[in-house]
Amino acid sequence: MTNSSDSLAHLAQVIESRLPKNGGDPTASYVARLLDKGPEAFLKKIGEEATEVVMAAKDADYGGDKTKIVYEVADLWFHCMIALAHYGLTPADVVNELDRRLGTSGIEEKALRKVLAREAENP
Amino acid sequence: MTNSSDSLAHLAQVIESRLPKNGGDPTASYVARLLDKGPEAFLKKIGEEATEVVMAAKDADYGGDKTKIVYEVADLWFHCMIALAHYGLTPADVVNELDRRLGTSGIEEKALRKVLAREAENP
Amino acid sequence: MTNSSDSLAHLAQVIESRLPKNGGDPTASYVARLLDKGPEAFLKKIGEEATEVVMAAKDADYGGDKTKIVYEVADLWFHCMIALAHYGLTPADVVNELDRRLGTSGIEEKALRKVLAREAENP
Amino acid sequence: MTNSSDSLAHLAQVIESRLPKNGGDPTASYVARLLDKGPEAFLKKIGEEATEVVMAAKDADYGGDKTKIVYEVADLWFHCMIALAHYGLTPADVVNELDRRLGTSGIEEKALRKVLAREAENP
Repeated sequence: MTNSSDSLAHLAQVIESRLPKNGGDPTASYVARLLDKGPEAFLKKIGEEATEVVMAAKDADYGGDKTKIVYEVADLWFHCMIALAHYGLTPADVVNELDRRLGTSGIEEKALRKVLAREAENP
Repeated sequence: MTNSSDSLAHLAQVIESRLPKNGGDPTASYVARLLDKGPEAFLKKIGEEATEVVMAAKDADYGGDKTKIVYEVADLWFHCMIALAHYGLTPADVVNELDRRLGTSGIEEKALRKVLAREAENP
Repeated sequence: MTNSSDSLAHLAQVIESRLPKNGGDPTASYVARLLDKGPEAFLKKIGEEATEVVMAAKDADYGGDKTKIVYEVADLWFHCMIALAHYGLTPADVVNELDRRLGTSGIEEKALRKVLAREAENP
Repeated sequence: MTNSSDSLAHLAQVIESRLPKNGGDPTASYVARLLDKGPEAFLKKIGEEATEVVMAAKDADYGGDKTKIVYEVADLWFHCMIALAHYGLTPADVVNELDRRLGTSGIEEKALRKVLAREAENP
C-alpha cells in the first residue's frame, strides 16, 4: 500500500536524480532544467505557484472547482521539493518539523504564542 | 513508528478539529482564528510564507543556515493545509496528485511537456 | 521636461492601446498578449515579479548591485499597470490614493493605526 | 496643482525621513518601525501585499468593487517605496527605468523580445 511517506520520498528520489551532480539532463527533464538554472529559476516558481494556489482558492470561493486547488498546491509543493533537493534537504525534514511542532506543545498553540509574542513586541 | 503519512494525516485532523463547524475556538487557537477569519486571512499568509521560503533560500545561497529553509517550508505547507481544510480537502489529496503524476508518465516529463506546449502556443 | 506623472500616464496610454477592445495584437505585443490571455496570466506575473523584487533585495543585502532592485520594481509596477488597464483603472488612481493618505493624516500614522487596530482585535 | 511626480517624490521624502539614520522613531511611525526591523520585515510585506492585489483582482472578476484593487496596489507600491528608501533608491529611479524602456524601443516590444529569447533558450 502506498502512503504519503512513500510517495513524497519516492518523488524526492526522482528529483534528486535530476541534480546536475547526479547527471540530470537539462534538455530532457523539466526538473533537471530548473536545477541546472539554479535558485533564481525555481524560487521564482515558488512565488508564482503560491499565487496560483491563491487564485484557485478565490475561484472556489465563487463556486469554482475545488480540485484545481489540489492541483495548484501539488505544483507549489513540487517546486518546494525541487528547492529542498538543491539545498540537500528532503520533504521528510519538513514533515519531521511539522511533526515536532505537533508532538511537543501542539502546532497551533505554538503558532498562537508566536503571534502573541510578535504583537507584544510591536505595540 | 511515525511516518510522513501519519504525520500529515494527524496534523490535518488537528486542523480540521479547529474548523468553526467543529467547534474551533478562535480565542484559544491560531488555526481556529485563521479559519474563523476566512480565506483572505489564510491565503494572504500563503503569499507571505512563500516569500519567507524564498528569503531563507537566498540566505542559504550566501552561507546562511539551511535549516531555516526547512522551517519556512513547514510554515508554508502548514498554511496550505489550513486552506485545504477550509475547502474540505486534505494533504492526502495533494500527495495522491503528486503520486498520480509520478506514477503515470513521470512528473518531470509531464511538466516539461506542459512548458513546451506553453512555449509552442506563445511563439 | 519629463516628470513621473507624464511617464506613468504615457505608459498607461500605451498599455491601454493594447487592450483587445482597442485592437491590441497578441501576436505582436507582449502587453496585448497578456491582456488577451486575461487575469490569470498577468496576476500570476505579479506574484512572480514580487518574488523577483525580494530576491534582488536579498542579493543587495549581500553586496549585489542595487540597480537590479530598480529593474525588478519596474517590472512589478509595469505588470500592476497591465492589471489596472484591464480593470479600467490607471496609475493616477493609485498615486491619488497614496496622495490622499499622505494628505490627510499621514500615511504612516494611518498604517500604524491599522496595525494597532489589527493587533487589538487579535489579542 | 499636484501631479504624480510631486506625490511620489513627496511620499518618498516622508519615508526617507523615517530611516533610522534620519531619526525615524519606531515607536511612533509604522514606516520607521518597518525600516528599523530591516529587510525581512518589509520584503515579507511585499509578498503579502502582492497576494492582496491578486485577491482584490479576483474579487473584481466576480463582480467585486474595483476600487479595492486601487487600494491594494497602493499598499504594494507603498511597501516597495519603503524598500527603495532602505536601499538608497527612489520611485523616480523606477519611473525613469519605465520611461527609458518606453522611450527606446517600446516597453512591450522589449518585453516580448525578452520572452521570445527566453523561450528560444529553453526549447
